[in-house]
Amino acid sequence: MDQKDIIIQPIGSIQSPFHDLADMPIQPSAAEGIKGSIILDPALEDGLLDLEGFSHLVLIYQFHKSKGFNLQTKPFLDNQKHGVFATRAPNRPNAIGFSVVKLLAVKGNILEIENVDILDGTPLLDIKPYVPDFDHPVSTQVGWLENQREKIKGKRSDDRFIK
Amino acid sequence: MDQKDIIIQPIGSIQSPFHDLADMPIQPSAAEGIKGSIILDPALEDGLLDLEGFSHLVLIYQFHKSKGFNLQTKPFLDNQKHGVFATRAPNRPNAIGFSVVKLLAVKGNILEIENVDILDGTPLLDIKPYVPDFDHPVSTQVGWLENQREKIKGKRSDDRFIK
Repeated sequence: MDQKDIIIQPIGSIQSPFHDLADMPIQPSAAEGIKGSIILDPALEDGLLDLEGFSHLVLIYQFHKSKGFNLQTKPFLDNQKHGVFATRAPNRPNAIGFSVVKLLAVKGNILEIENVDILDGTPLLDIKPYVPDFDHPVSTQVGWLENQREKIKGKRSDDRFIK
Repeated sequence: MDQKDIIIQPIGSIQSPFHDLADMPIQPSAAEGIKGSIILDPALEDGLLDLEGFSHLVLIYQFHKSKGFNLQTKPFLDNQKHGVFATRAPNRPNAIGFSVVKLLAVKGNILEIENVDILDGTPLLDIKPYVPDFDHPVSTQVGWLENQREKIKGKRSDDRFIK
């Protein structure tokens, strides 16, 4: 093991209607109304106290089907290559994903969520409350994505990251 | 090693003016104007192509000074206990942090950033472009934090997570 290795363990898993990497919504904004659940490790259930007051969660998870990466890649929303760090592509040096989803209900160690753009069986690494005061800058620019914004809704993945 | 272990390696590190866990801004919104840098592993520099067009970045990093966690905790903004997943406290089951920071410039493998609420020397795990269409829900509720919102600006950490 390398000295720099960081070892983490899933705190639970995410259930969703998506069993294949292709034909998935590519972001929560393209997954409106799609429901899923979080099955949290029951030993961690006490950590959910007061979460129900928040309408949205930040989920940090493993892109567990990701295999390797290229430093430059064609993301779903473009046919030009961009640096992997300028995209949200799942194949990246550390296969870590994050999504902001809607929280519908907390039932014991089960969380019902909506706007789920995540593959079924995905290992969950962290849950944080979404707080616009922390997480939403007022004025933003989105580079190469500027001309792709109208394409986001309803956009589905294809097989470009499956190999 | 446990079967479920996920091994990740830093892609670089974050430099900031903050050398101590106490007296830090607790979120980017409390760190306005505070500058720092990302030193990306030079081998990954090609992954930065076209990042410069984005005004803000999502940084995912390790809370490398975090030691253990409690399932219920008093966060900086309150004196009531809340479930750790309903807080942004650094001591959590997986010590993973995320911040949205402003991107000022890309110079080779060095990124100049602003609104930095991150400890100097923090191991960086991922850089993603911040995209409001993906990451910012239109209507949100923030639970126990609702009455603490006016406290966020200028709020500094104390020593409660240092032991």
